[in-house]
Amino acid sequence: MNKSFNLQELAEFLQAEWHGDPEVRVDSIAALDHAQPHQLSFLSKKRFAVHLDTTRAGIVILDRNQAAPAHLNLLRVENPYLAYAKVSALFCRRARAQMGVHASAQVDPSASIAATASIGPNCVIAADVVIGENSEIHAGVVIGAGSRLGAGCIIYPNVVIYHDVHIGDRVTIHACSVIGADGFGFAHSADGWFKIYQLGGVHIGNDVEIGASSTVDRGALDDTVIEDGVIIDDQVHIAHNCRIGKRSAIAGCTGVAGSTHIGADCTIGGMVGIGGHLTIGDGVHFNGGTSVTRSVTEPGLYSSGTVMQEVKTWRKNAVRFGQLENWVERIKKLERD
Amino acid sequence: MNKSFNLQELAEFLQAEWHGDPEVRVDSIAALDHAQPHQLSFLSKKRFAVHLDTTRAGIVILDRNQAAPAHLNLLRVENPYLAYAKVSALFCRRARAQMGVHASAQVDPSASIAATASIGPNCVIAADVVIGENSEIHAGVVIGAGSRLGAGCIIYPNVVIYHDVHIGDRVTIHACSVIGADGFGFAHSADGWFKIYQLGGVHIGNDVEIGASSTVDRGALDDTVIEDGVIIDDQVHIAHNCRIGKRSAIAGCTGVAGSTHIGADCTIGGMVGIGGHLTIGDGVHFNGGTSVTRSVTEPGLYSSGTVMQEVKTWRKNAVRFGQLENWVERIKKLERD
Amino acid sequence: MNKSFNLQELAEFLQAEWHGDPEVRVDSIAALDHAQPHQLSFLSKKRFAVHLDTTRAGIVILDRNQAAPAHLNLLRVENPYLAYAKVSALFCRRARAQMGVHASAQVDPSASIAATASIGPNCVIAADVVIGENSEIHAGVVIGAGSRLGAGCIIYPNVVIYHDVHIGDRVTIHACSVIGADGFGFAHSADGWFKIYQLGGVHIGNDVEIGASSTVDRGALDDTVIEDGVIIDDQVHIAHNCRIGKRSAIAGCTGVAGSTHIGADCTIGGMVGIGGHLTIGDGVHFNGGTSVTRSVTEPGLYSSGTVMQEVKTWRKNAVRFGQLENWVERIKKLERD
Repeated sequence: MNKSFNLQELAEFLQAEWHGDPEVRVDSIAALDHAQPHQLSFLSKKRFAVHLDTTRAGIVILDRNQAAPAHLNLLRVENPYLAYAKVSALFCRRARAQMGVHASAQVDPSASIAATASIGPNCVIAADVVIGENSEIHAGVVIGAGSRLGAGCIIYPNVVIYHDVHIGDRVTIHACSVIGADGFGFAHSADGWFKIYQLGGVHIGNDVEIGASSTVDRGALDDTVIEDGVIIDDQVHIAHNCRIGKRSAIAGCTGVAGSTHIGADCTIGGMVGIGGHLTIGDGVHFNGGTSVTRSVTEPGLYSSGTVMQEVKTWRKNAVRFGQLENWVERIKKLERD
Repeated sequence: MNKSFNLQELAEFLQAEWHGDPEVRVDSIAALDHAQPHQLSFLSKKRFAVHLDTTRAGIVILDRNQAAPAHLNLLRVENPYLAYAKVSALFCRRARAQMGVHASAQVDPSASIAATASIGPNCVIAADVVIGENSEIHAGVVIGAGSRLGAGCIIYPNVVIYHDVHIGDRVTIHACSVIGADGFGFAHSADGWFKIYQLGGVHIGNDVEIGASSTVDRGALDDTVIEDGVIIDDQVHIAHNCRIGKRSAIAGCTGVAGSTHIGADCTIGGMVGIGGHLTIGDGVHFNGGTSVTRSVTEPGLYSSGTVMQEVKTWRKNAVRFGQLENWVERIKKLERD
Repeated sequence: MNKSFNLQELAEFLQAEWHGDPEVRVDSIAALDHAQPHQLSFLSKKRFAVHLDTTRAGIVILDRNQAAPAHLNLLRVENPYLAYAKVSALFCRRARAQMGVHASAQVDPSASIAATASIGPNCVIAADVVIGENSEIHAGVVIGAGSRLGAGCIIYPNVVIYHDVHIGDRVTIHACSVIGADGFGFAHSADGWFKIYQLGGVHIGNDVEIGASSTVDRGALDDTVIEDGVIIDDQVHIAHNCRIGKRSAIAGCTGVAGSTHIGADCTIGGMVGIGGHLTIGDGVHFNGGTSVTRSVTEPGLYSSGTVMQEVKTWRKNAVRFGQLENWVERIKKLERD
């Protein structure tokens, strides 16, 4: 059974003005154009206002100044998308993990597990690990010696956290991600590659979310650092000794090479490749697929690559790209003649 | 010991015409140019026909109309590559998992596990999960509450399936893939990113194969959908609310951003990045490495990017790319003068 | 407590000339500009020599011919970066896994585990597996039937090794990587994709390191091969029937498509996409982000793509890229006129 809420309850939760029947009740959320009378909806983009006349939604979250038909039950707020985010937590059906340590978990006697924390089946918790209040460590998670997690963390199944990783409060890490594996450091020698032991750790701040199958490597000497409020999607790779600044967001499949520092409030699209030893300032935005090979100090939106075309057309243009210097010389010659 | 089959048995299995010694026996498959007398081979590309005169293969699968030396033992079929695919199953040495629930697995009493299914060591199966007949759930797999798998599925070790994921029949998911992690949804606020709980699930049809370390995120409100017959390689990311149409194939390291719908019978090369909120029609093909930033309605083959060159040459051309608008203006001026 | 070493001990370990106080003792490593008196540092790049006058490091590793202030305690070697790599092992705090088989591990009676090897909690070791002396198999690792690992391997938590995978000596594989999942092989038929069972295995040589969340697929008929001394970063995908030559290095997020052979001593940057059925010779280097769509026989450094620019500028140039063939025709016409 889903939980349900009436208009008045939601208005209180959101501290929103309401209009309509205070008793009308919703048990889930849906888009305006296919919401049913038992569902909550919201209008976050002007171009969807056309659906207000026909929506069957039981309750609609709206901007304070948005006109709407009188028969609708409304919650009026300043930022409808943010309000939707806030109420989404109410309707989440994920069960909180049970408190306590599961009988099948292997917890070293020297580890300190808060009484309200949950350690799931088959977890392996090494010496001197600290787990804070209300943190949920799901099945199959392995945490190495000396690593510390704060309060209210959610670590999903089969995540691996190596030794000497420090994680703040309210950090979520999705399944199969790996925090603290060795950075890719090797010295070249006549006999081949010689491993550089990675002696640093990983420091993750508060209110960070990391998606599934992502990797954050430990530092060579100092720590790799993910600052407060950073959000990272699935399949992202953060190499050793990177620093990701506060509230920066990194979309899926992006890779950041070693020792690169990214500022605060950056947004980095999907499948962006960022080279090593670069400095990216605050408020820099990269479009998806950008190849970042130099430092960026100026805030702004950056991109690289070419437009996509049908192969027959694209191939001719790609060949011409490979001759560009030559064509430029020919233009210069024409200008001289 | 490998299993072995004689010419007549294989002819019956493939419903193929045969030629040669019905008793000749093969125990494995190899390419024409290095197959031994105890091995089966096949000719799927005309350019390899040159090997027919010298091959030592015990049996060769051939096109009905392909000329071949009289001494060879042959299986003649319409599509030799498809016939090879069919017989490959006969020679697979992977052991089927044992039926039943392993003593170390944690299965919630409310879960429904078919009698012929296999639940491997250390699996964790939550409340209300349903597992169909003959499905193999390998070691260390974690399945969240309410998720359902059909019959004949193979879920390889350490896969994580979150709650409310519905998977059809004959679905294979390789090791360490994650199905149903949260989509990357956050609302921006003055205090940073505010999480949007991902209330949808994942729906995977029948006869789907997903490679290792891939991720398919759950939907924000509605389900993320993978339709029947889709094949997905390793390290692929499918974001929330995507829909992948029937029989489409997605090669390794590709990422599809949120809410993008891909049609049926598409082929998507490796390391393709597909932007969010796009619509890709049926029968669209993307070359490896393509950056897809617009919807595509016309079937066809698309590409983006530049040719690869030695860096000294490439750098000059890349610099000229960054000045293209300027050079175009200079061409226009020359035309005017 | 960190281990500590004095100047004389380190000189013996490195077979280095020393200068200064033989009793001065260090317990960790730090960069020249912020090392403390209890720390070891090194100078590997000329441009950091400026820090020699001010460094507080207890001991500094230096090139034999590098001038330095007389008060510093020095270790003089031929290759300071390599010497740093060698001493890094001394300061590593990772605990070696305990010898023996953990009570919670599931080991098939037919498996052969060396007496000095370690099998961690919840490992699942199938029939006929062989594990060599001093190898550490960490928690949650699953190894399929008939796979063999040599001596001195470290397999980090939750790695999955399928059946018939052969791994040499001193191989390290980081957490959640998958070795031997099925290659992406399917035959097209009127009914959709028909699976080609992947009958080959994976062969990994000696002294190989593979990062976290990487995937090396098994071969279709023959083995996928990773030769001796190869180093592979996180999130890398090696498809079926690839061969990676000795001492080649592959950085994070790179993908190599099926049946491509890469020579010895290559370096492949991050997020490089290499197409299938290509041959890359010895000593070839690809910059990060390169899209490799043809074979390369000549040693050298290769690249593809465009420079990154602010979107307003980039968009104009990208549009012009899509018209290049047309502009070339206009240049040719100007030349004719």
